Amino acid sequence: MKEKKILVIGAGLSTPVLIDYLIDRAHANKWLITIADMDKSMAEKRIEGKDRSCAVFFDVNDEKMISGLIPGFDLVISMLPAFLHTRVIEACLEYRIHMITASYNPVNAADYHRTAQERGVILLNEMGLDPGIDHMSAMELLNKIREKNGKIISFKSSTGGLVAPESDNNPWNYKFSWNPANVVKAGQLGAQFIEEGFYKYIPYHQLFKRTEKIWIEGYGEFETYPNRDSVKYREDYGLMDIPTMYRGTIRRPGYAKAWDALVQLGMTNDLFEIENLADMNYKEFTQSFLPSFSGDLKANLAAYLHLDEQSDTFKKLEWLGLFSDQKSGLTKGTPATVLQQILMSKWALQPLDRDMIVMQHQVRYQTGNITKKVESTLTVEGKNSHYTAMAMTVGLPVAIGAKLLLDGKIELTGIHIPTSRQIYQPILSELKTLGIQFTEKEMEC
Amino acid sequence: MKEKKILVIGAGLSTPVLIDYLIDRAHANKWLITIADMDKSMAEKRIEGKDRSCAVFFDVNDEKMISGLIPGFDLVISMLPAFLHTRVIEACLEYRIHMITASYNPVNAADYHRTAQERGVILLNEMGLDPGIDHMSAMELLNKIREKNGKIISFKSSTGGLVAPESDNNPWNYKFSWNPANVVKAGQLGAQFIEEGFYKYIPYHQLFKRTEKIWIEGYGEFETYPNRDSVKYREDYGLMDIPTMYRGTIRRPGYAKAWDALVQLGMTNDLFEIENLADMNYKEFTQSFLPSFSGDLKANLAAYLHLDEQSDTFKKLEWLGLFSDQKSGLTKGTPATVLQQILMSKWALQPLDRDMIVMQHQVRYQTGNITKKVESTLTVEGKNSHYTAMAMTVGLPVAIGAKLLLDGKIELTGIHIPTSRQIYQPILSELKTLGIQFTEKEMEC
Repeated sequence: MKEKKILVIGAGLSTPVLIDYLIDRAHANKWLITIADMDKSMAEKRIEGKDRSCAVFFDVNDEKMISGLIPGFDLVISMLPAFLHTRVIEACLEYRIHMITASYNPVNAADYHRTAQERGVILLNEMGLDPGIDHMSAMELLNKIREKNGKIISFKSSTGGLVAPESDNNPWNYKFSWNPANVVKAGQLGAQFIEEGFYKYIPYHQLFKRTEKIWIEGYGEFETYPNRDSVKYREDYGLMDIPTMYRGTIRRPGYAKAWDALVQLGMTNDLFEIENLADMNYKEFTQSFLPSFSGDLKANLAAYLHLDEQSDTFKKLEWLGLFSDQKSGLTKGTPATVLQQILMSKWALQPLDRDMIVMQHQVRYQTGNITKKVESTLTVEGKNSHYTAMAMTVGLPVAIGAKLLLDGKIELTGIHIPTSRQIYQPILSELKTLGIQFTEKEMEC
Repeated sequence: MKEKKILVIGAGLSTPVLIDYLIDRAHANKWLITIADMDKSMAEKRIEGKDRSCAVFFDVNDEKMISGLIPGFDLVISMLPAFLHTRVIEACLEYRIHMITASYNPVNAADYHRTAQERGVILLNEMGLDPGIDHMSAMELLNKIREKNGKIISFKSSTGGLVAPESDNNPWNYKFSWNPANVVKAGQLGAQFIEEGFYKYIPYHQLFKRTEKIWIEGYGEFETYPNRDSVKYREDYGLMDIPTMYRGTIRRPGYAKAWDALVQLGMTNDLFEIENLADMNYKEFTQSFLPSFSGDLKANLAAYLHLDEQSDTFKKLEWLGLFSDQKSGLTKGTPATVLQQILMSKWALQPLDRDMIVMQHQVRYQTGNITKKVESTLTVEGKNSHYTAMAMTVGLPVAIGAKLLLDGKIELTGIHIPTSRQIYQPILSELKTLGIQFTEKEMEC
């Protein structure tokens, strides 16, 4: 067996399980694993000095580091935030190296597809949880229905990274299990879906008002808000003429209404820098989004947003410390940066906290004269604040995908998401052995 | 006198007066003038075969055209939309050619400033109406107050391109006198200002709700909404410690509330493409922004936006044809593209229509124990739909700036806006002779 070299770029919150999986199997597979991060100590923490692995400092904005580090690897796994992938993708294409990410396909996917095909490499994206396991499990479910000649008439799928019931002890029913910056900026491009044949286009400032309720067995009620562009997945899923195609993000009821208050204020805005931030406390930060100049801040905010000061929504805002004298400690930043700072102190997963993943597909199909509804649900709870459900469900499909690729089991080139059976089938089946398994419920409508 | 070559890139709505000014003075000054546009016939229309001028086809996205056309000119005036300037700026720096635009300074102004200084050229931006005449007249006014030892405590300045009262015959009290795409996308970055010592940060979706009323002698009541980043001009204007600094956009009362309805719906969104646009009529377009699937479209929209169907705001929406069976005729486009298509048919300046410019500075200052208020107001009416007030007030300061520059009267290098006396003084004084003149009113508070 030939030695294979794997480079993992980014050692953030989603990577511990991915890295453990690779290191645990490194001897048997003759893999050599390099973990690269801006924060070298973070990369070191992930490998804990284990054999066949090393940690290196890496700055993705440094051209010389990219051309110095990347050539020579058999596979690059980039776990960087999506907007930082570009130079890594280009280097992988240049040096003909396969690449896997858990991020959405980039906007210029078509160009990359052509180049990747010419160069005989695969650029496998959307290989995490959502996007990732959602595609894999959806395709398995849809293909099973197609095999029984069912005509699929509605596809809805939602996912949420939340906190396990026993650790769920704040008024937002939410804690950070992944990149806080992504949570703060979630949805800024708005969302598109199709329902009952109607295209629906939702701008950012309406997104958190347009919720739907769902129920997860054993966990109770949740709400979903629309997640990005659902329409484009009709083609990926082979559902071109389907009248309902919706992807959502799951939160506990009430989260979206309170988050919408932050959006309406403008606190999630990442487009400009705040003046004199070092001198500004949270009360003044809040004040800067209100039209008022004097009077009681809480009353002004409640009036501006048409909220009752006694409401759950208002209490969520209060609990964040938006009316306090505290300062952010930042000297430079946008409203979104300041909000993230506030949230990181409030929504941190404590060492013994456990997070939770919920995903639910709701599919309606016709067979003969009968309309049936299938609900396929995944729930995963984390072990602790390090070995999270998020790190498992994002990291394991990436890791198993890496193994398949290095074992020569994936024969595709170009840019892909995991909708082909050769990818999703072995990954879902190994995930099952690792305890990540969907429960299906079918009923007649 | 040496022959001088001037290149004007872009022959759109704001350019007829600029081009006439240059051509009329071409013989006397030994200028040779080239007008370049994607639409060559538009460039030809602007020069009407006059001496010392020629029209050429030019595509700013074509690298070869840029390096083929630009070298050899003494001055480049770019009247393209701001986002298209980049390559022209870079070429002017490369070939050491002075450049003038009516656009905002680019975000990377500091980098360009250094390069322009090294290469001994000036990149003179914000030379139109707003930004442009607003800076020039503000600096003249502020310096006059400073010369009498007045302490400036409040600066507010607003500008609007509107329609002259006799041509003001639609419910929006608005018609297009400049680039419709800019009107549709106006404000998408939000706005920042400081008032009574409080920084105010306004996200896009609140911008059109945060209006103030103003009164223009002879024209009546108007409203303003905040215009981009006012805070940064404190430095340009030498007003670093001023507690109130506000720049606004002027519209007739009621415009902002109705425009906000379009914003709230998501119709100004330019971030994604509409599906099946060719088959979609305006009614269906409107429907796609609403949460409802059935029922009366008008009632659904009114309920969604909390509007009364009998209100002026609702009637403005109705008048646009948002509930009609008409199709856009477009096969591809974002919500903003479709909205622009709708507005272009409704808000077109008819051949005999006359537009109007209003600008007002409101300055408060202290002298001894007395607080005074100065209101400095400019109103300009256009001659017809070609020779518009917009084309005059954007084109003439650019044109006069060009003359000053070619006459060696501006000795600056680097990137600049017209806040230096050597620039604004001769421009304002020539504008006066052309009938563009402010009226001042001072009162004690």
